[in-house]
Amino acid sequence: MTEHATAFVPGHITAFFSAHPADDPALAGSRGAGLALSDGVRVRVTPADGRSVSLDGLPIEMPPVESVLDALGVEARVEADSDLPIGTGFGVSGAMTLGTALAASAAFDTQRTENELVELAHAAEVTAGTGLGDVVAQARGGLPVRLEPGAPGHGSLDGLPARPRVEYLTFGELSTESVLSGDTAALTAAGEAALERLLEQPDVSTLFAESRRFAREADLLTGRVSEAIEAVADAGGEAAMAMLGRTVFATGTGLTDAGYDPRRCTVQPGGATLVADE
Amino acid sequence: MTEHATAFVPGHITAFFSAHPADDPALAGSRGAGLALSDGVRVRVTPADGRSVSLDGLPIEMPPVESVLDALGVEARVEADSDLPIGTGFGVSGAMTLGTALAASAAFDTQRTENELVELAHAAEVTAGTGLGDVVAQARGGLPVRLEPGAPGHGSLDGLPARPRVEYLTFGELSTESVLSGDTAALTAAGEAALERLLEQPDVSTLFAESRRFAREADLLTGRVSEAIEAVADAGGEAAMAMLGRTVFATGTGLTDAGYDPRRCTVQPGGATLVADE
Repeated sequence: MTEHATAFVPGHITAFFSAHPADDPALAGSRGAGLALSDGVRVRVTPADGRSVSLDGLPIEMPPVESVLDALGVEARVEADSDLPIGTGFGVSGAMTLGTALAASAAFDTQRTENELVELAHAAEVTAGTGLGDVVAQARGGLPVRLEPGAPGHGSLDGLPARPRVEYLTFGELSTESVLSGDTAALTAAGEAALERLLEQPDVSTLFAESRRFAREADLLTGRVSEAIEAVADAGGEAAMAMLGRTVFATGTGLTDAGYDPRRCTVQPGGATLVADE
Repeated sequence: MTEHATAFVPGHITAFFSAHPADDPALAGSRGAGLALSDGVRVRVTPADGRSVSLDGLPIEMPPVESVLDALGVEARVEADSDLPIGTGFGVSGAMTLGTALAASAAFDTQRTENELVELAHAAEVTAGTGLGDVVAQARGGLPVRLEPGAPGHGSLDGLPARPRVEYLTFGELSTESVLSGDTAALTAAGEAALERLLEQPDVSTLFAESRRFAREADLLTGRVSEAIEAVADAGGEAAMAMLGRTVFATGTGLTDAGYDPRRCTVQPGGATLVADE
């Protein structure tokens, strides 16, 4: 047991997805593609007598984080600091869950491998209904493509090698739970078709085009989001909508060129990791 | 086609391995474990009329790099800059091969996914006889564990989550080709047993203990290497021998504490990546 351990987990924007439920949460998940961001969440876990979870200094209820602590059989203080807006499609819940798994395992020396910890966090997210594919994508980094749903050893991943700069802008929340608990048949059909087309032409431009088409077909575009995507296109750039949030993301200086004042970051080349010993 | 593209590939120290040849180079490979290092190789690929390959400014013969260019059907100038000593167990050949695949694909916009490029580089290394497991480990980063041999989609990987600081020191070359083309039955038996024990207790201390045991059983320890490993142990640290080079690596300040003057780096959390657009 150490004094504490810290993990960094990239934010993850889902460009498009299909939902694949299953009784075993390690087999459940999503297929699709997205972007892992250099903006992310740092999670510090400190062994403690009681249990507490905070985000940016404020106490927060986070059931999948609790599940991870339960599964590891530990009591700890979990302190997360995030660069990202919450509830707007950046995978903050997945980041806190995976970060807790990595940091708690290190702090308590539970001797688990990376795959085991990713599976633990993935299953906790799926069971809590807070996400289907963020954890495995955040574990990989880059521009992750989820070929088959599920935790490591069950699902499978690929990635686009490009490392574009990214801008993003948020207009508000969209509840992941409400969309994922609704009728996902149309979403899934659109997501599977998008993945097929991306794999035929695996580049950033196709990723964005398929993301826009997915949001349109799934009827998820709202006024200001749709407006911003068009404004970026008019300025000669590429933008799309984050699944699931009223968030627009663009490559390069797309949103700036269209007259917005976005946040800027890069694609995070590696995935979630413990922060190196000081 | 762009002006040029650059990839960074971490160095990779193999702690122990078992060799698994196969007719199809995508299925061939090794099982084992090792360390991906923040010291690595930057490979810049520039489309050109003719073909040239250099390492740290000097022309070099590198058959797997040529194979990658052949497979992509391109002519280019490949310029590699390395932090690492060559021929001493850091996977410089794998790094140049994988870096060429990533950067050439980007420079010529060949629309290949990460898995496709890793497979291309892995097959080129295996066919050239210059390595069996470096490429897939370098693609993953961290402390990669090769569970099953082969390229993505065939082999499988896990990793230890720890991110220790690393020191290393080199006393000279050991030919990968000569060891891999010899009788590898004893090596393979020792490597498989080491992997089994590491997976029972997946931590850094076991990684080093199994690496030392592998080198001893495979009769690869030489005087100065063995001396340095003992000196680090006497100073209370953990060290082992890189497969395959007369190289000693240690965690933390192990070699410094034992009175040596080593190179210092960290574990590279992510694997090989294109360098982000400037």
